[in-house]
Amino acid sequence: MADSSSQPLQTVSDLGEEQIIRRFAGAGPDLPRGITGIGDDCAVTEGFGGQKQLIGTDLLIEGIHFRSEWTSYRDLGHKALAVNLSDIAAMGGRPENFFLSLALPASMPVDRLDGFREGLMELARKYEVPLLGGDTTRSPGAFMISVMITGRADPEHLKLRSGARDGDILCVTGPLGDSAAALSILEDPQKYSRVPEDHRSELLQWHFRPEPAVRQGRWLGEQPAVHAMIDLSDGLLSDARHLAEQSGCRITIALDQLPLSGDFKAFGKIGRTAEQLRELAAAGGEDYHLLMTVSQAQYSAVARQFEQRFGGVLHVVGTVESGSSEVRTLRNGSPVEIQQHHFQHFNRP
Amino acid sequence: MADSSSQPLQTVSDLGEEQIIRRFAGAGPDLPRGITGIGDDCAVTEGFGGQKQLIGTDLLIEGIHFRSEWTSYRDLGHKALAVNLSDIAAMGGRPENFFLSLALPASMPVDRLDGFREGLMELARKYEVPLLGGDTTRSPGAFMISVMITGRADPEHLKLRSGARDGDILCVTGPLGDSAAALSILEDPQKYSRVPEDHRSELLQWHFRPEPAVRQGRWLGEQPAVHAMIDLSDGLLSDARHLAEQSGCRITIALDQLPLSGDFKAFGKIGRTAEQLRELAAAGGEDYHLLMTVSQAQYSAVARQFEQRFGGVLHVVGTVESGSSEVRTLRNGSPVEIQQHHFQHFNRP
Repeated sequence: MADSSSQPLQTVSDLGEEQIIRRFAGAGPDLPRGITGIGDDCAVTEGFGGQKQLIGTDLLIEGIHFRSEWTSYRDLGHKALAVNLSDIAAMGGRPENFFLSLALPASMPVDRLDGFREGLMELARKYEVPLLGGDTTRSPGAFMISVMITGRADPEHLKLRSGARDGDILCVTGPLGDSAAALSILEDPQKYSRVPEDHRSELLQWHFRPEPAVRQGRWLGEQPAVHAMIDLSDGLLSDARHLAEQSGCRITIALDQLPLSGDFKAFGKIGRTAEQLRELAAAGGEDYHLLMTVSQAQYSAVARQFEQRFGGVLHVVGTVESGSSEVRTLRNGSPVEIQQHHFQHFNRP
Repeated sequence: MADSSSQPLQTVSDLGEEQIIRRFAGAGPDLPRGITGIGDDCAVTEGFGGQKQLIGTDLLIEGIHFRSEWTSYRDLGHKALAVNLSDIAAMGGRPENFFLSLALPASMPVDRLDGFREGLMELARKYEVPLLGGDTTRSPGAFMISVMITGRADPEHLKLRSGARDGDILCVTGPLGDSAAALSILEDPQKYSRVPEDHRSELLQWHFRPEPAVRQGRWLGEQPAVHAMIDLSDGLLSDARHLAEQSGCRITIALDQLPLSGDFKAFGKIGRTAEQLRELAAAGGEDYHLLMTVSQAQYSAVARQFEQRFGGVLHVVGTVESGSSEVRTLRNGSPVEIQQHHFQHFNRP
């Protein structure tokens, strides 16, 4: 039957993730008051004892998000929970419980499943987040992992993507591009064989076992000077665009100011100009640091306390102004266009 | 490397779902007081305004739980939410919000995705359960659906699997076996071509579009005479065993008393004895009615009110006694053994 609203031959590969989400977002019943749905790192509902409840979920699919020949299953278990913990941190919340659904290929060795469990549960114990339920089934092909996490935050500590204000400073909690560099190394190990082993292993370590900024996120949530927050999963440029769009402001990123690790710089000596390296740091995904906007007047005080408490720098990477919902990038003070390779699963070959 | 606790060549296919869940269940941090984790239809946590929060989740995987050549995607959308609504109903709760994660094959036609969305959202609107979030990604193979649902219940209305008491009566809210009959028809349409079309279509309708007992579950939750409840997803025998094991009691099911629909009886005229038909009704899964134990003294009053309110019978199918955690089946008052075909995805070829 003909449907005037869609082309009969269109497939899912013609759509991006955002288009798919939009197709679903408007079709349900209205949200009750006090509920925040699709569009942030977590949904926000009314929780226990006057607190807000946070709920987030992430899928990891073999062949799309990970390759079994690259990753250890112990690391995979760690990462499956880490990316969800990061969503709670990005809201300024504390994680509470999680749920795990697995689709398992019948041929998967039990010791892989056990490795997965150990990596997952080690992180669950570290942050005291118990596993409360889930579902387990056979998979006809890929190993698929669906983790759902709950958390809580005091209402006044909640940080949304929509809170950025004119005059804010844009900051990140860690160096950019390490995970993207690791992905490049995995995809072309021959090319990067000259990257010294200690640097290579550090980059791979972060890619396979990112440490979610759980304590940092909760502390940043408590700071009134922090206005908006998101975790870096899609990459600085994409995630800054989420802030810009939901806050209705213009964000300007200074490429020269991006924090880069020594490992990333060592990686960058092969086959890339200094400019290309900074573009990779800006566009690459899966950093899992926190990106936030902070009141300019209070930035120094917040950064000083952050450093005292966590031993890390709150790196300034840009500024926020009122204006159209967009992200600009500057190199040596002049605007430049960056060719982005999004983590757009649907459009990848 | 050798691992003394597992056989090196063991694969997931050597494990059942319960063994896999047990591997994960004990490995995390301890649960806080007031929290019920793995082992019921939903997890139970402290919720808003002195209520309990319920959280359940179900996976549906193409090739395991459904076949694209059999189901319409509109029905699939309905079913994906229906089975989760049923989990909330089984706890005596009311559904609140849901989350949807999809792994989509790139080749899936957009009109299928739209059909899925329409079936899903139609049911979401019917029960006023908004979609609050999720995740969307490409799948390298099967279409995979992970739905997570939240609900709430007054603490005194919550019904657990563990509440059955000596002397209770075992009841179900609807006829048994319709979904299993539909599966038999789908697997061998030639054999069942003589089942009259009106009966066949009713059976298939229930299989593809089960109606979750949302209002019934909530009302039954309010009845103190209802002591334990579960929804019929695995099949009467399996789900009664869950009640028996978690309540520490013996359940006796009278096969002669099982309620059977006219459609199911018409299906049963082909290739089955009356006894085999009742065994299928007892063992077949996906009925999605509610199974509960009710105080014997109050059964009549509860059943009368149930019938007045919902126009359906609370069918008596067995009894509960103190004793070992097991399920017995009687035929004409004598014990019989039933060969079960569990819905054991891991062990199926």
